[in-house]
Amino acid sequence: MTQASLMRTLDANSADFEQELQALLATDLTVSGNVNSTVHAIIADIRARGDAALVEYTAKFDRWQPSAASDLELSKTALAEARARISEPQRQALEQAAQRIHQYHEHQKAESWRYTEADGTVLGQQVTALERVGVYVPGGKASYPSSVLMNVVPAKVAGVAEVIMVVPTPDGVISDMVLAAADIAGVDRVFAVGGAQAVAALAYGTETVPPVDKIVGPGNVFVASAKRAVFGQVAIDMIAGPSEILVVCDGQTNPDWIAMDLFSQAEHDELAQSILLAYDDEYIAQVQASIERLLPTLDRADIARQSLTSRGAIIRVRDLDQALVISNKIAPEHLELSVADPDACLPKIKHAGAIFMGRHTPEALGDYCAGPNHVLPTSGTARFSSPLGVYDFQKRSSIIYCSEQGASELGKVASVLARGESLQAHAQSAEYRIKD
Amino acid sequence: MTQASLMRTLDANSADFEQELQALLATDLTVSGNVNSTVHAIIADIRARGDAALVEYTAKFDRWQPSAASDLELSKTALAEARARISEPQRQALEQAAQRIHQYHEHQKAESWRYTEADGTVLGQQVTALERVGVYVPGGKASYPSSVLMNVVPAKVAGVAEVIMVVPTPDGVISDMVLAAADIAGVDRVFAVGGAQAVAALAYGTETVPPVDKIVGPGNVFVASAKRAVFGQVAIDMIAGPSEILVVCDGQTNPDWIAMDLFSQAEHDELAQSILLAYDDEYIAQVQASIERLLPTLDRADIARQSLTSRGAIIRVRDLDQALVISNKIAPEHLELSVADPDACLPKIKHAGAIFMGRHTPEALGDYCAGPNHVLPTSGTARFSSPLGVYDFQKRSSIIYCSEQGASELGKVASVLARGESLQAHAQSAEYRIKD
Repeated sequence: MTQASLMRTLDANSADFEQELQALLATDLTVSGNVNSTVHAIIADIRARGDAALVEYTAKFDRWQPSAASDLELSKTALAEARARISEPQRQALEQAAQRIHQYHEHQKAESWRYTEADGTVLGQQVTALERVGVYVPGGKASYPSSVLMNVVPAKVAGVAEVIMVVPTPDGVISDMVLAAADIAGVDRVFAVGGAQAVAALAYGTETVPPVDKIVGPGNVFVASAKRAVFGQVAIDMIAGPSEILVVCDGQTNPDWIAMDLFSQAEHDELAQSILLAYDDEYIAQVQASIERLLPTLDRADIARQSLTSRGAIIRVRDLDQALVISNKIAPEHLELSVADPDACLPKIKHAGAIFMGRHTPEALGDYCAGPNHVLPTSGTARFSSPLGVYDFQKRSSIIYCSEQGASELGKVASVLARGESLQAHAQSAEYRIKD
Repeated sequence: MTQASLMRTLDANSADFEQELQALLATDLTVSGNVNSTVHAIIADIRARGDAALVEYTAKFDRWQPSAASDLELSKTALAEARARISEPQRQALEQAAQRIHQYHEHQKAESWRYTEADGTVLGQQVTALERVGVYVPGGKASYPSSVLMNVVPAKVAGVAEVIMVVPTPDGVISDMVLAAADIAGVDRVFAVGGAQAVAALAYGTETVPPVDKIVGPGNVFVASAKRAVFGQVAIDMIAGPSEILVVCDGQTNPDWIAMDLFSQAEHDELAQSILLAYDDEYIAQVQASIERLLPTLDRADIARQSLTSRGAIIRVRDLDQALVISNKIAPEHLELSVADPDACLPKIKHAGAIFMGRHTPEALGDYCAGPNHVLPTSGTARFSSPLGVYDFQKRSSIIYCSEQGASELGKVASVLARGESLQAHAQSAEYRIKD
């Protein structure tokens, strides 16, 4: 391993590895007090003044002047026109991706269930969809049509009656691909608003924007801070940190492929993190050579170089088992198992957002069209979080229907426990149902 | 309807009903800045000083002096001894309740799944349990053994390897019933700590308390505020508001039963909310008479009276259908359908934490032993939240395993979309897998 290599190299069996790993993974996601106070002021203003405030903030931050609040809504026709305007290959690619995403997510749909006990008591759970959901889509360069598909399709599969998309249009400009994706995914209404003001409008409603039950989708620090502030009033998805990939390779994959897989994360932004775990010095040197050779060919070489230099790493491990132990410590958002028998690894993987198995499954396929969601838990939150899914747009109500006999038996148990908790009315309410 | 009745009466068909309903449901859950700054200081202190700070806060807030941090842990033997010490009927009641809760929650367990496409590509989801979970149990009078069962059993059913319970012991006192419930539910370790300091210890770990992946369980305003503050570092359950019940009655249930069902909510605390929807003036008068007659017989009559007077209501509706429309607006935590054919109502119910069906299913049975969870979404959050369940202790990893043929086809789609998003490395990573 040359010291001059672009990515730092760590040895998993060195004395200070644990410390080095912690330093590598550390991210400072603290939001400045200024951002928070700005966001809280915007939210209060939207709640107080509704559409009038929404129009003002849009004029100020997005630099175009709606003549009325109704200007903020994009028509269904506009979406259909955008879909017709994009190139045939692009339209087909979006449609194929949407179809595969739809198909995969159908498998996640939970159904209501119930069972009947011997005495006739019925227990179960009624599963229903959220009624109205807001999807935030960033504007400008970060406005990804694939994100529209990934956030909207699961909601529609769940049966959400109304999906409201918000997307800022800086200088009045919006991407045809984004509108086409909205049309293909089945978005019900689109408003050309963004920032904390859009999140506030979705959470509390204005005269024009209807209030939703949950807000999902990525955004900048103002959007993330606003989502955190309205959490409780509405549900939100997780607040995403920088995206990361962990590649485990047995040294038998074309090193150019591995280099490009690492780049595909690093090109996102300077804070993105790409880590390779491998156990063959010669192979590591080959990947390093590929990185040096291929990096300058990228359009976004500067971003990728900054990301790989400041946050990337190649970690030399003893063997595949040690690689998986370290992977579980990292709990990566994307885990690529570029090994001969990835199926054998699966039982040992405790935490990962998505697992890309084998040499022919780069993350990029999952980002766009394999079917599973690309909204995944970042920054080690795969320890306790899941990919965005249909389950995020469904909710459950417990069903309890006691027979007279069942109520009589349960009433005796409840009575003892309620009196133990000094809750007499609970006890008496149960005792009324005990048969003499 | 007499103006002198204890509970306010509203008419759902009066002109200003919508406004009255909003006023009835309004709760101010704003946390004072003082609480927040105290909580943030405690969290920072626990992170900086670990056990030393935890011992100091315990001495200060719970008024007993641990001689060392190891004093904070209660032994497994202590739990077993408490279980042996409680009365036989209480032990049996706890065991029966635990068994029923266990049985019900088994139905919620999600399993891993995968499917294979025509070209050999495998897609699926691997479901795993969280590794370590913290359960907060309040101390003193709010220390309910039933809450221990309801929070711990779903985690154990999910397969959580280690459930850590924290419970403050004011003046060194702890309830045998709570320890017995912990033993029965299968808690792995118990620490006698509480407040924001316990939440901080669970979120970040100390020398003695191991860090967990998720914190669940009810607590006072300091606990709730601390949970909100550590959200992101760990997962948390919802922040609960005051408990509420909505009873819909067709006028054929013994009015004493309905009165007691309303009391069983009102006796919790002054902010608890009990609402009755009925469509028969004469029956409403009968329930009012039952309330007047039975209320003075309660041990906690003062609390219940305050709750019913300030937050309770009887709403006169036109018919059952209107009752269900209003119920959906309220999205109640507990919905009791004391009607002849509750099954016919079910398809019309959009939002409710738990649905108690028929005249023989009072909330109290669900609170203790019917099987479903008593941790339910409050304050209208049933619009987007579910009862605590096994699903709260499981997480999912997407599985993508492309065949060479599958990767080649998907690579073409991904390439078009990635180039549309100006992400060249994504495109090239996908294109490497396209077969010539």
